[in-house]
Amino acid sequence: MARIVPLRPGGYLGGMPKAVVLLSGGLDSATVAAIARDRGYEVHALTVAYGQRHAAELGAARRVGEALGIAEHRFASASLGDFGGSALTASIEVPKDRDLGEMGEAIPATYVPARNTVLLSLALAYAEAIGATDLFVGVNAVDYSGYPDCRPQFVEAFETLANLATKAGVEGARFKVHAPLILMSKREIIETGLALRVDYGLTHSCYDPVGDRACGRCDACLIRRRAFEELGMNDPALAR
Amino acid sequence: MARIVPLRPGGYLGGMPKAVVLLSGGLDSATVAAIARDRGYEVHALTVAYGQRHAAELGAARRVGEALGIAEHRFASASLGDFGGSALTASIEVPKDRDLGEMGEAIPATYVPARNTVLLSLALAYAEAIGATDLFVGVNAVDYSGYPDCRPQFVEAFETLANLATKAGVEGARFKVHAPLILMSKREIIETGLALRVDYGLTHSCYDPVGDRACGRCDACLIRRRAFEELGMNDPALAR
Repeated sequence: MARIVPLRPGGYLGGMPKAVVLLSGGLDSATVAAIARDRGYEVHALTVAYGQRHAAELGAARRVGEALGIAEHRFASASLGDFGGSALTASIEVPKDRDLGEMGEAIPATYVPARNTVLLSLALAYAEAIGATDLFVGVNAVDYSGYPDCRPQFVEAFETLANLATKAGVEGARFKVHAPLILMSKREIIETGLALRVDYGLTHSCYDPVGDRACGRCDACLIRRRAFEELGMNDPALAR
Repeated sequence: MARIVPLRPGGYLGGMPKAVVLLSGGLDSATVAAIARDRGYEVHALTVAYGQRHAAELGAARRVGEALGIAEHRFASASLGDFGGSALTASIEVPKDRDLGEMGEAIPATYVPARNTVLLSLALAYAEAIGATDLFVGVNAVDYSGYPDCRPQFVEAFETLANLATKAGVEGARFKVHAPLILMSKREIIETGLALRVDYGLTHSCYDPVGDRACGRCDACLIRRRAFEELGMNDPALAR
């Protein structure tokens, strides 16, 4: 009797399909990389230096990638910081000590114009060059939304674009943009990652670190701290 | 009697609306920049070093921008070349002396994975940072198509994405991607540019130059040479 070989993601019969995972070094993207690996993909991580004011993220991305044991880790750059318009790339103050209820009411100063569009475009270029059609991105529209390029309709529009923009798409490949966290709360994200043995002590989410130490007071720090507290834990990145 | 102020593009009453124009230094994008200026836009040019094997394009872009007298010229970078997969960024041979009929039958080796997606993403970032909603790009789907990211449906999909991806889009701005050359022949493009006094001797289209001298034999050189011949002219970039 013939052995039944289960179909892998992407329809491959055996072998691991490749996926490109955008890995910033933050809590969300570390979780996404672990999810992609758990779903049977060969993970090719892409970390983009886009002109962030601080480089702590890039070091965290390297540590996270090493800990996950991914297949390949590429570092790319895009000079998005030159355009300004964001507290993450220009000299605009990062908001501190905000009430959690207040977040998400308006698009925050930390919004970087077209950032996720640029990041996904580079991920698409990388994917097409290595013959991958699966992209993973850690966008999240629930706890602390506010960013337009973290919404499901943005992800869908990018997927449509990817299939029209590429040689692979014209030749019949179907690009898929996976955003597994998009409807999860921060607490659910952390629970998912812990079940996959993600070491959150290696991650970096802070918008305004001193060296590689998280400030503990910006929106990103406050949101993850609260989520860890809900789980009865201390945020291991703040204890560092 | 009140003086009637004509509506400018973008609905502005007086003052010049800003447009971001992707300016590679080639024949097409030089023409597009002249068109944008002629339509009453304040032209903010963006030239992207994306890992091209040769830098002749970037020098040409600078010369073209200076000759047009644009408002601002930004140079950005994106490390697209690291991914490979193209004769323009990796060590793959550029096809030479091809029959013009043969071109456009398949997507050529000079296709760069996701290039126009990355370029338009950076243009979008720049536009949002300066408060512009009009993007101009010199894609062309007629003479020598073959590139998936030069088709009208690609441009439309990017426009949809831009309006979902940005803070400006969420707040009611409507991004418009202008591709005025998309249905023109190369000859029509040149006629348009000559009427707008574009100096095509400053432009650079060659895929495989020696220094900043065009090879005269790659697809890009052959197509523009034939178009100039149809107009009873020599290509001024080849005479250089």
